[in-house]
Amino acid sequence: MSKPFSIGVDLGGTNLRVAVVSREGEIVDRITVSSTGNVIDSLTAAIERLFSDKINGIGLAVAGLTDGKKILSSPNLPILKEIDLVSVLEGRFNTPVYLGNDASAATLGESVAGAGKDFNTFVMLTLGTGIGGGVVYNRKLLNIAGELGHIVVEPGGRLCGCGGRGCLEAYASARAMSMAAMEAIDLKRETMMTLDKNGRIMPEDIYKYAADGDPLATEIFKNAGFYLGLGIANYINIFGPDAIILTGGLIGAWDIYVKKAIKTAAAAAFKELFAKTAIIPSKLAGDAGIVGAAELTYC
Amino acid sequence: MSKPFSIGVDLGGTNLRVAVVSREGEIVDRITVSSTGNVIDSLTAAIERLFSDKINGIGLAVAGLTDGKKILSSPNLPILKEIDLVSVLEGRFNTPVYLGNDASAATLGESVAGAGKDFNTFVMLTLGTGIGGGVVYNRKLLNIAGELGHIVVEPGGRLCGCGGRGCLEAYASARAMSMAAMEAIDLKRETMMTLDKNGRIMPEDIYKYAADGDPLATEIFKNAGFYLGLGIANYINIFGPDAIILTGGLIGAWDIYVKKAIKTAAAAAFKELFAKTAIIPSKLAGDAGIVGAAELTYC
Repeated sequence: MSKPFSIGVDLGGTNLRVAVVSREGEIVDRITVSSTGNVIDSLTAAIERLFSDKINGIGLAVAGLTDGKKILSSPNLPILKEIDLVSVLEGRFNTPVYLGNDASAATLGESVAGAGKDFNTFVMLTLGTGIGGGVVYNRKLLNIAGELGHIVVEPGGRLCGCGGRGCLEAYASARAMSMAAMEAIDLKRETMMTLDKNGRIMPEDIYKYAADGDPLATEIFKNAGFYLGLGIANYINIFGPDAIILTGGLIGAWDIYVKKAIKTAAAAAFKELFAKTAIIPSKLAGDAGIVGAAELTYC
Repeated sequence: MSKPFSIGVDLGGTNLRVAVVSREGEIVDRITVSSTGNVIDSLTAAIERLFSDKINGIGLAVAGLTDGKKILSSPNLPILKEIDLVSVLEGRFNTPVYLGNDASAATLGESVAGAGKDFNTFVMLTLGTGIGGGVVYNRKLLNIAGELGHIVVEPGGRLCGCGGRGCLEAYASARAMSMAAMEAIDLKRETMMTLDKNGRIMPEDIYKYAADGDPLATEIFKNAGFYLGLGIANYINIFGPDAIILTGGLIGAWDIYVKKAIKTAAAAAFKELFAKTAIIPSKLAGDAGIVGAAELTYC
């Protein structure tokens, strides 16, 4: 019989976050651990403090590719590729340990206790530096590649971090917007925007300029929103979902970026399918990954 | 207990095809019925001839949208929208009747007895006048919208039959190729191709010209193949499938069209995912829909 709590670990962010999560997806205790120093020791110590005989297992959400037991690529914590973390933790705590991609875990988290709770089938898109996501079908997380930011929306277009050209991520992500702004400033296009001391500009700054009426800043958000809308339309036509759930830092720009995306998707998707799809923000936001990681122990 | 045979009906083509299919997907008897005249009477008579006490049920594959019990749109047989065919046949034969979209049924057919037999997860694309398809995940057909030909591959591009712009179908289907050839001939581009007495040109003719070395005809097939390749790359990155199965009349042009698509997909998809994806033709070809329709009675 399964026990009433699990430990969820989100290894996807700049800090490692560890929490005790109820089966219903409620976080009842949490610890944040720095990702500098000996990560494995700090992580083990944090789990130690939260562990009890009511814990059903440990779930880990990692950025990068996994095969469910091993971490195949780990862009932000390369050490995880060297160490068999699942075996280490199973040995140390004598409990089952599960592994999932952070965007998939976040999708599962929203399904159990967030904005996806009332939907059988939904697509979640995480809109941040990159674009990822996951798909819940008939209340179960699909165990698919889920590289939802890497569909081509502009053939022969901008080179993407994945090596392809014209991906959704290369046009609608935070990184894409920063690059578009830097390029435009470099080309001396008329704008109030300026680069910071590192020669960069962050999407939150572009957004402030857009809110102040800077036409170039607004154009950058709308252009990104247009491509996001094509992506949303594609996922509507493929899955015919009950909802598209959007999460990540960029949904702060809902009024420009997401609004443009919704308008674009309405024109591009099948009308009958678009009409039955709710397009809504996530509820758990940054906690979705940790809740979903814990939930992996019940799947 | 389920019985060893089912009747599969494919209402998607120009003729109605009715067959007795074993649980393993083998066609043991078949009748082809003209779709002119009283379709319902001819269909009922054909089923009558094939029906026995070993029949588990009747499965119908239709072109257009269904909700599993009702036909919501039926482009080639409008009468099916007027008549509740499921109830008519259930009443007449006192056996359960199931309904599915023809591309979904074909996908199920390939999974049970065709090229998808050895794969857990695959995407099938039907490449004909239009483009459709289906997805098998962990050996089960996903009951999704599955409008796989209606993802945007050229933003702001050609108007598609669905009302959107730049869909895969508007660039990589047989209809798209005919239109591209007609347009080019109209613009007096250099080519040996000529229009037929109805002012049209069929893909099989364009293909013959391409095989004879006509550069424009070859370009049309390669251009369509390029867009097909983007679509294939998208489905590889989304699903990470074991296989992409291609079916429909256009796979006759494998050496130009599909070859170009594979080359394009190799460059656009994640390398690790592309490497594990078999890209292969269907085995059942035109019989996939009838086999899948029969199989609906066991799902």
